Amino acid sequence: MQTLLLNADDVDENAEIDRVIDAVRGAFTAYERGDAKMPAKSYIDLPEYNGDFRSMPAYLDVREEDVAEETETGDGWDAAGIKWVNVHTDNPADHDLPTVMGTMIYSDPETAFPLAVLDGTTLTMKRTGAAAAVATDHLAVPDATSLGIVGAGVQSYTQLEAIAAVRDIEEVVISDLDEERVADFVDAFEGRFDVRAGSVAEAGHCDVLSTVTPVETPIVGPEDVGEHTHINAMGADAEGKHELADDLLSDATVVIDDHEQCTHSGEINVPYAAGTLTDDDIYGEIGEIVVGRRAGRPGTPGTAADAEGVRGVSVFDSTGLAIQDVAAARVVYERADELDNGYPFDLLGLDG
Amino acid sequence: MQTLLLNADDVDENAEIDRVIDAVRGAFTAYERGDAKMPAKSYIDLPEYNGDFRSMPAYLDVREEDVAEETETGDGWDAAGIKWVNVHTDNPADHDLPTVMGTMIYSDPETAFPLAVLDGTTLTMKRTGAAAAVATDHLAVPDATSLGIVGAGVQSYTQLEAIAAVRDIEEVVISDLDEERVADFVDAFEGRFDVRAGSVAEAGHCDVLSTVTPVETPIVGPEDVGEHTHINAMGADAEGKHELADDLLSDATVVIDDHEQCTHSGEINVPYAAGTLTDDDIYGEIGEIVVGRRAGRPGTPGTAADAEGVRGVSVFDSTGLAIQDVAAARVVYERADELDNGYPFDLLGLDG
Repeated sequence: MQTLLLNADDVDENAEIDRVIDAVRGAFTAYERGDAKMPAKSYIDLPEYNGDFRSMPAYLDVREEDVAEETETGDGWDAAGIKWVNVHTDNPADHDLPTVMGTMIYSDPETAFPLAVLDGTTLTMKRTGAAAAVATDHLAVPDATSLGIVGAGVQSYTQLEAIAAVRDIEEVVISDLDEERVADFVDAFEGRFDVRAGSVAEAGHCDVLSTVTPVETPIVGPEDVGEHTHINAMGADAEGKHELADDLLSDATVVIDDHEQCTHSGEINVPYAAGTLTDDDIYGEIGEIVVGRRAGRPGTPGTAADAEGVRGVSVFDSTGLAIQDVAAARVVYERADELDNGYPFDLLGLDG
Repeated sequence: MQTLLLNADDVDENAEIDRVIDAVRGAFTAYERGDAKMPAKSYIDLPEYNGDFRSMPAYLDVREEDVAEETETGDGWDAAGIKWVNVHTDNPADHDLPTVMGTMIYSDPETAFPLAVLDGTTLTMKRTGAAAAVATDHLAVPDATSLGIVGAGVQSYTQLEAIAAVRDIEEVVISDLDEERVADFVDAFEGRFDVRAGSVAEAGHCDVLSTVTPVETPIVGPEDVGEHTHINAMGADAEGKHELADDLLSDATVVIDDHEQCTHSGEINVPYAAGTLTDDDIYGEIGEIVVGRRAGRPGTPGTAADAEGVRGVSVFDSTGLAIQDVAAARVVYERADELDNGYPFDLLGLDG
């Protein structure tokens, strides 16, 4: 039996974004329903290298009734795997390597055979974009046409790609202090969208805003966003990081992906630790909204147009869950296997 | 940058046993000195498939003074990685697959780049044999020449290979109810050793005994072993499993690899849970003996011939630690890299 090796290009080509979004929505659903097993991320801190390793194992079982008919075969599915990922801040300057690198092992839950080993870096971008898209689908105004992005790094590309799959985005405002990055982003998308550089406030006055920066001092205040802007706060991934001002958060409807992760290292971790944001300020988890236990914004999937629901500014605090990686890996593996992409390799020597 | 893919054959060829033993000894040392980081194994139980997944991440830093001069360059080293491994009991019968399969990601701790992806199944056998060898070196009589093995499965081969690297083994007694397995074992080694089939008691009256069976009812009693037999109890890896009778254990000097793992799923887990074996019955951890904080058997490394130390029957309860996997993976990777073995693969797409 062969293990399929899928490098960065293979992951990029086979992570069809509609399917990844559907799979990630399924993952949030399974988690909410109690059909996922996800031990806490475990960390190995290496202060001597200014870095850490994180191991993210998960299993999830998505029921047939929760699979969107248009993007899948319609059958339920289950999947398992682990992502081994790091954050080494000095990598770009000292080693000409990315800060974050990931390797994913995707396994058949029935036998545990390692079906694939994938580049986890590209996979992380795809599943992170997909999470923002799921949140946007349930929390942004149904007729959203504009998207602002603060931070023009690698994540900004998948934010646009994924969010454009759930809303008819026409106008895009990209904001970053690095003019070269902004120009690259504009170049990449100017054929498909009305895309331009802008200030944080210009980005924030779009219908949807995604923030994808690693800052420790908030860069988006209440005056920077529109009356109904839905914000995907994607950047915070460690204690001390946050992108949104406390008073913006406290007036918004805050939806999180996971209580433990968000309070520990998500967008809300700083005010939560300070006690200025409490559990009472958290509207719910994304899984509750996806399965319909809590209302989304009126007129979005699962929430009637005339329902009580989310109004005003909403915020999705995304830390990234291991179940998202497993869900996205399944999409990539299934597609690559179907198209004979990737490199089969007898890793375990079972063919000998 | 390329990630080196090392399949089962590559691992087998490059796991030079002297080096693996030295590396595993280094791992026990680092762990004892507080120079290792090893989060608890995390489990994903899948009762619907009668199986589980385990993730085993670790980092270790072995000091220069703890590296044996004859088998290494003499420099200290550090290493990091994760093994993703399973136990699916129905695999052989239902899927023609091994019960246990492992995949190992071996990473550079300084940058976190995944230097290698290895077959973790073969690696597990090597590092398990090496652990038995380290224990044997410190706990068996210095002039041991005979080795008994109960259980003629895959682990029996690496037990002999590794233990013969630390003692001048001449006579080998292999005991198993499966005559074909016994014949295969004898065939494999009869050129190098005086090897024969025998009863459990004949195996147990050798200077060293390794038990490598998955039994839940003990198969070795006090009458089955010699006066100074050192026993490597390798088989127990889950609650309810044990190979040695309670009264054999209670009269022996018991050395463990890790308190949490051994009391939860090692050889001692059943009597420990029943309260018939307590912490007072545990002599120490293997790391304490390796670094000299507790005496081994008189005349063995670190313990003078006339010292107070371990006498009579000794037992090493081995559950297998993530640091052993990382240590063994380093040996395999370094050797394979040196000899241009394995398959370089641009998994992360950093060469593009």
